[in-house]
Amino acid sequence: MRLTQTLLAAALLAGPALAADGTGLDAGDLAVAESLRGKAMAGSAAWSVVESLTTEVGPRLAGTEADARAVRWAEAKFRAMGFDKVYLEPVTFPVWLRQRERAEVLAPFPQPLVVTALGGSIGTGEKPLDAEVAEFANLDALKAAPEGSLAGKIAFISNRMVRFKDGRGYGPAVGARSNGAVEAARKGAVAIVIRSIGTSNDRFAHTGTMRYLPDVPRIPAAALSNPDADLLVNMLGRGQPVTLRLDLSAETREAYTSHNVIGEITGRELPGEVVTLGGHLDSWDQGTGAIDDGAGVGITMAAGALIGELPQAPRRTVRVIAYANEEQGLYGGKAYAEAREAAGEIDAHQLSAESDFGAGRVYALRAGVDPAAWPVIEKIGEVLAPLGVVTEAGVGSPGPDVGPIVAKGATWAQLAQDGTDYFDYHHTPNDTLDKIDPKALDQQVAAYAVLAWLAAETEVDFGRAPAKAAP
Amino acid sequence: MRLTQTLLAAALLAGPALAADGTGLDAGDLAVAESLRGKAMAGSAAWSVVESLTTEVGPRLAGTEADARAVRWAEAKFRAMGFDKVYLEPVTFPVWLRQRERAEVLAPFPQPLVVTALGGSIGTGEKPLDAEVAEFANLDALKAAPEGSLAGKIAFISNRMVRFKDGRGYGPAVGARSNGAVEAARKGAVAIVIRSIGTSNDRFAHTGTMRYLPDVPRIPAAALSNPDADLLVNMLGRGQPVTLRLDLSAETREAYTSHNVIGEITGRELPGEVVTLGGHLDSWDQGTGAIDDGAGVGITMAAGALIGELPQAPRRTVRVIAYANEEQGLYGGKAYAEAREAAGEIDAHQLSAESDFGAGRVYALRAGVDPAAWPVIEKIGEVLAPLGVVTEAGVGSPGPDVGPIVAKGATWAQLAQDGTDYFDYHHTPNDTLDKIDPKALDQQVAAYAVLAWLAAETEVDFGRAPAKAAP
Repeated sequence: MRLTQTLLAAALLAGPALAADGTGLDAGDLAVAESLRGKAMAGSAAWSVVESLTTEVGPRLAGTEADARAVRWAEAKFRAMGFDKVYLEPVTFPVWLRQRERAEVLAPFPQPLVVTALGGSIGTGEKPLDAEVAEFANLDALKAAPEGSLAGKIAFISNRMVRFKDGRGYGPAVGARSNGAVEAARKGAVAIVIRSIGTSNDRFAHTGTMRYLPDVPRIPAAALSNPDADLLVNMLGRGQPVTLRLDLSAETREAYTSHNVIGEITGRELPGEVVTLGGHLDSWDQGTGAIDDGAGVGITMAAGALIGELPQAPRRTVRVIAYANEEQGLYGGKAYAEAREAAGEIDAHQLSAESDFGAGRVYALRAGVDPAAWPVIEKIGEVLAPLGVVTEAGVGSPGPDVGPIVAKGATWAQLAQDGTDYFDYHHTPNDTLDKIDPKALDQQVAAYAVLAWLAAETEVDFGRAPAKAAP
Repeated sequence: MRLTQTLLAAALLAGPALAADGTGLDAGDLAVAESLRGKAMAGSAAWSVVESLTTEVGPRLAGTEADARAVRWAEAKFRAMGFDKVYLEPVTFPVWLRQRERAEVLAPFPQPLVVTALGGSIGTGEKPLDAEVAEFANLDALKAAPEGSLAGKIAFISNRMVRFKDGRGYGPAVGARSNGAVEAARKGAVAIVIRSIGTSNDRFAHTGTMRYLPDVPRIPAAALSNPDADLLVNMLGRGQPVTLRLDLSAETREAYTSHNVIGEITGRELPGEVVTLGGHLDSWDQGTGAIDDGAGVGITMAAGALIGELPQAPRRTVRVIAYANEEQGLYGGKAYAEAREAAGEIDAHQLSAESDFGAGRVYALRAGVDPAAWPVIEKIGEVLAPLGVVTEAGVGSPGPDVGPIVAKGATWAQLAQDGTDYFDYHHTPNDTLDKIDPKALDQQVAAYAVLAWLAAETEVDFGRAPAKAAP
């Protein structure tokens, strides 16, 4: 420890003499980056942060009492971890609260099903809804159904999400969740159930947001667990009408104000320029929000704190943001971007990244920056390479809460994570602490700390976000 | 197919000329056994039987309307599968029905927990029960607590079941479930919660029976899922009192009569001598009872049906029994044994086996028979060897429903299954069809068909059950 710090101090004193390669970084900067990497890999604070959040707060659906507790928790945690500036930023949104959710097959083979309401769904009313099920292989098949053909029926979309390391099976499947209710209502359906947008065969139903349109009747929408979707498919395969009873209720409230919680390591030379990391503080209500997104909060808090422990801060400010209400519409990310725009601070954002894809290891560095700044990204990638991270040009996208500020011109980086098992757990009761490998979290902390340090230390300006990813 | 049947017919006509090795079996008998093995491995009916039971009946807690449907299902299925004699045998037992079950931490870190009532537990009364939690590392630690030390508290046993292929982690752990309520009540506790007796970290609480004693106050008993038990341990580790709210209710009813459902392939020479296979027809109420014990029912029905399809029946009768209410006290097995004893038919039982350890492959043949009959067991083992089955002397035990008749002197065989993942699923909502590998079922059908055929065909008498397993 002592030896390392001496080396670092010497390296920092050496100054920017080697910064002629377009990276704006010198050997000292890189030595610090390597030391951050080593420290994180030797054991970071990330797991204990997630343990604290999931144990002491637990599920924290946006707009609930637990949301408020999570905000207090994050504020205290930032302070305890040595961030020199900690503050809250208001984020206002409507509230949706899950209440009753039950489903059962009434005929021809009565048995209960595991179901969960989709976020934002209306209930079935005072009494349960009983109706015949009409199966569709996917959302397109539902769209192709004749007008009125679902009058009085419950639509059932049975397509299964496919597992990929990068989660690309989510996009093609999630339309059933987002838009299924609208499409089913257009055909006359009285409700919709979908196969869970998840990859696991564990008997958990995956929740997540859905939307209504002003000109389309609102119908209740719910997801069945994969084994229950299988069961329903098997029943329907026997050729007899299948009658389902659906019993959902939910409460909605207007205009709750939660907060983005922000911790900073103030830059030593350019405190007004910021590199942002972050995750989202809210979670769905069923699990304890360990991988979605306690992990992201823990990783980025721990990475920021490591930088805060250095003998001196980087040139620019490192800002870690625990975003409010990502799950129900990126409210925290949008509020953050709007407030920065109003303050004329978009250009002050040098590079922004979010960790919101679970707790799997990072395998790629990607970025959307001014081409002139690409050498910095490549240099960062060199320091990340021993972590098993490759630098990929021309691909990638910012994290969900970073999207809104990128849309306003901010640059971004992505540390792509292995999401092979992410959709086994996310948005289910099974999103709990035990699903996290502490060693994998350490690797991610190492990657975020290196990224944040070098991006905050370089003399290069990352510019404005290009129209496309890459240099 | 045609060629095989011709060969079999020829083999059967050859008669018992080679039966001088103490096995009472000749080359023809063995050729039939090998053909049964091959047919089963090429694709048996077992999976489709389990699919039918889980889809068309689903969960079938003893004493419910679904129990009655399961009995009708089994009767019809035996007939459809070609058993020449199908009948019901009454089994009477008290009924326990799960109603409400909720738990939450009230302080210091409010959040809901996933909990399930243990089978037989009383409820918490009209209002939920709020009390401080006292943790014990295991049942022995609870037993060692001073008298009265748990007055007004909820005992929590946190020990974790260990995973083994043969399930031997169950015995040391399950005492907390069976006897925890009695031991906790003796110390003054008002309720008990235990870590689930299961090996998975999925967020399902495992149910299963518990018992009360006449002279000890009855207190509510429930299991937390493993992630929730972890959570509670982590909370308690912070040193502050933890208050739990437990809200359980259950209904009990007296004297429901269900049925063992029995299908037979009548023996061609000694129809009064029987070889019995079986599984239990009832299930817990949370899953669809696919691995516990739809699998056992499907495997043994399919094995019996394969024997029924032979050009001629074996010398003895092959009887497949779908036992009633195993889960809540081996009622079906006990009723079966008592009825046979009353009829003087214990000695008519040549060999009895049950499949009730999930859907994993068979890896060992074990038996409790007269030592003079051990050569038959070894010969059966030779035919099973290509299935990856070894013959083990001196170890093993009969299946749960076979236990009662073995206690009365009947001999038994055990086809030991790989139960590595059995306790991940059993007694949880996650016990569903997708957890079954159809190929593994086929291997088990092969093993049971070979066992039943050769045991029913041999001229050797298996005698009376020895005091210990093995010859």
